[in-house]
Amino acid sequence: MTRGLNVAVLGATGAVGQQIMRILEERAFPVAELRPLASARSAGQVVSFRGKGLAVQPVSDEALARVDLAFFAASGEASARYAPVVAKAGGVVIDKSSHYRMNPAVPLVVPEVNGYDLNFHKGIVASPNCSTIQMVMALKPLSQLAPLKRVVVSTYQAVSGTGRDAMTELENQTAQVLEEEKPTISVYPYQIAFNALPHIDSFDVSGYTGEELKMIHETRKILGQPGLAITATTVRIPVFIGHSESVNVEFGAPVTPEQARAALAAFPGVEVRDDPSHLEYPLAAGPGGAAGRDEVLVGRIRRDQSVPYGLDMWIVADNLRKGAATNAVQIAETLLALGQWSEWSLGRAEAAAAAAADDLGGAANAGSGLTGDER
Amino acid sequence: MTRGLNVAVLGATGAVGQQIMRILEERAFPVAELRPLASARSAGQVVSFRGKGLAVQPVSDEALARVDLAFFAASGEASARYAPVVAKAGGVVIDKSSHYRMNPAVPLVVPEVNGYDLNFHKGIVASPNCSTIQMVMALKPLSQLAPLKRVVVSTYQAVSGTGRDAMTELENQTAQVLEEEKPTISVYPYQIAFNALPHIDSFDVSGYTGEELKMIHETRKILGQPGLAITATTVRIPVFIGHSESVNVEFGAPVTPEQARAALAAFPGVEVRDDPSHLEYPLAAGPGGAAGRDEVLVGRIRRDQSVPYGLDMWIVADNLRKGAATNAVQIAETLLALGQWSEWSLGRAEAAAAAAADDLGGAANAGSGLTGDER
Repeated sequence: MTRGLNVAVLGATGAVGQQIMRILEERAFPVAELRPLASARSAGQVVSFRGKGLAVQPVSDEALARVDLAFFAASGEASARYAPVVAKAGGVVIDKSSHYRMNPAVPLVVPEVNGYDLNFHKGIVASPNCSTIQMVMALKPLSQLAPLKRVVVSTYQAVSGTGRDAMTELENQTAQVLEEEKPTISVYPYQIAFNALPHIDSFDVSGYTGEELKMIHETRKILGQPGLAITATTVRIPVFIGHSESVNVEFGAPVTPEQARAALAAFPGVEVRDDPSHLEYPLAAGPGGAAGRDEVLVGRIRRDQSVPYGLDMWIVADNLRKGAATNAVQIAETLLALGQWSEWSLGRAEAAAAAAADDLGGAANAGSGLTGDER
Repeated sequence: MTRGLNVAVLGATGAVGQQIMRILEERAFPVAELRPLASARSAGQVVSFRGKGLAVQPVSDEALARVDLAFFAASGEASARYAPVVAKAGGVVIDKSSHYRMNPAVPLVVPEVNGYDLNFHKGIVASPNCSTIQMVMALKPLSQLAPLKRVVVSTYQAVSGTGRDAMTELENQTAQVLEEEKPTISVYPYQIAFNALPHIDSFDVSGYTGEELKMIHETRKILGQPGLAITATTVRIPVFIGHSESVNVEFGAPVTPEQARAALAAFPGVEVRDDPSHLEYPLAAGPGGAAGRDEVLVGRIRRDQSVPYGLDMWIVADNLRKGAATNAVQIAETLLALGQWSEWSLGRAEAAAAAAADDLGGAANAGSGLTGDER
């Protein structure tokens, strides 16, 4: 049995990396040694874990040696370069970047939804995009009531999804606008204070953004419905923490709001907040809001009369917690429960490691942006 | 011919009433005398028009005597009480409240979309909800390309839609949050600063809000499609001026993004902002944003692959201008062009006035909230 694992966190100075360390503490994950890693630029900074200050080391093959478990919360390039290093050595990477998500050899996992897929990993597990995670947490129990036919989602995303710099930018711009000064534009292409930017990630030739395509493709993979009809519009709004989503679902058979509420309430990790007559509905900020919580909040569930069998709903979650760090730590907990690091499975993992690199694509070249919080 | 009209503005101290007076000036509408009216509570305040200060008078039957044209930007109760007074005396009310909008005897008009309906008014014309106006401005030209089959809309609405108090509340709460103080809640049931509230107007037993039902019913009436399949989720976000909308449209026949852009660009009052490769898309705030402009901005037009013939788009407009005051003044301009106040039509209007009150429902009792900005 494990006495504790050697755990690395790549991107340890970023918003998600920090949150991962906090949640490892909160949930008393069995960490023997924690190794905070980042780009050379951020190395030397001190992060705290279990009351101790730890110096952040620059990421390298050597720094990742003898790591049982590595959380990657950096750029896709960093994941491409370093995840195979960990996997080849018999460790497991839980990757928050988008790099491996659509790789057919890599499970893309929200434990409550498709934890079973963790049985088939080859040393790398991908954690989905924040916006995707909270949506599939609601779609999964609903899909057990009736087949999902089509999903139309519009998001209201917090700036912490972009990272620490963006949170600072929102704060600074907000103060500037209140002072009637010209807001300083840096992280986002336009003013985010008191505005709504229909632009997250880069634009594809289709006119969709990367974030929108992630929601479409990742949802299909996680739910195991490669043909699911789904469209998304993703929008950044001036909120610090907590993504909200307006989700319209068309079903292949009748689903009442009451049935939906019951199924959602019974699903682990989901909390129904749906009593409009008492002004109860999910919110991102404020007392009772999603920020700082692990649950995905669902409310405003109502019949959509524009299709034979449709529901509208409002889904809110902490994008840094369930949308990122909590989900990653839950993946680790599930791996632990599945025996990943027992003597028996350790042998299995080592045997599997050699073959893994080929499937996953070999390490190419060093990437940049190792403290980015992209997911 | 008119040398100028006697014009009353009810709700003259509210955000929309103020904007109406500004736009009457800007567009050089032929005003002989302007009479600013409000509730007794707000009477006595001084508002400015064409460089002169005018004392706001308390609304009464007498104050509305000999008025050719009255803009009502107050509560639904005020409209119910006073609009028939103006209509009976041969004047025309352009009503920004929701009271008469679904009355079959009252045209509900966005001049570019269904200005023709103004030929059939009986002394009262309703101006639609702000969220509806900007959406139908885009849906109308698209409906000429192919039949509209279904619309799914999610809104991102500015606090000025609620009124001046809400703008002050957003400003104050924002400063409080930045100072790490507890935000003072007054206008909205929850903190609006750095948050998203899926709650505009009151909740219906269906689970929809009044604002959502307005978008559904008003859109059908304006487009003359009583059976149009449409669902809406309306959300307040921390923006001062400018509503944004994520609109998904399913058509009955193919429409390409190129065709949609061309049809939208050719439609009066719409401006296409759609070049993602140069980061061009509609925004509410900032340089080039919708706030302060009369045009409805449309962009992010792209094929929705989840239905045979679908488009996603992003629609932004100034909710106080095209969403409220500009549309009301454009209705007046259209009535003027249709000869409403020529000698000939004045006679017609007086003849018609007697019959009007019955169709419209008689004046009941005095209402409250005369300075509200509800629409």
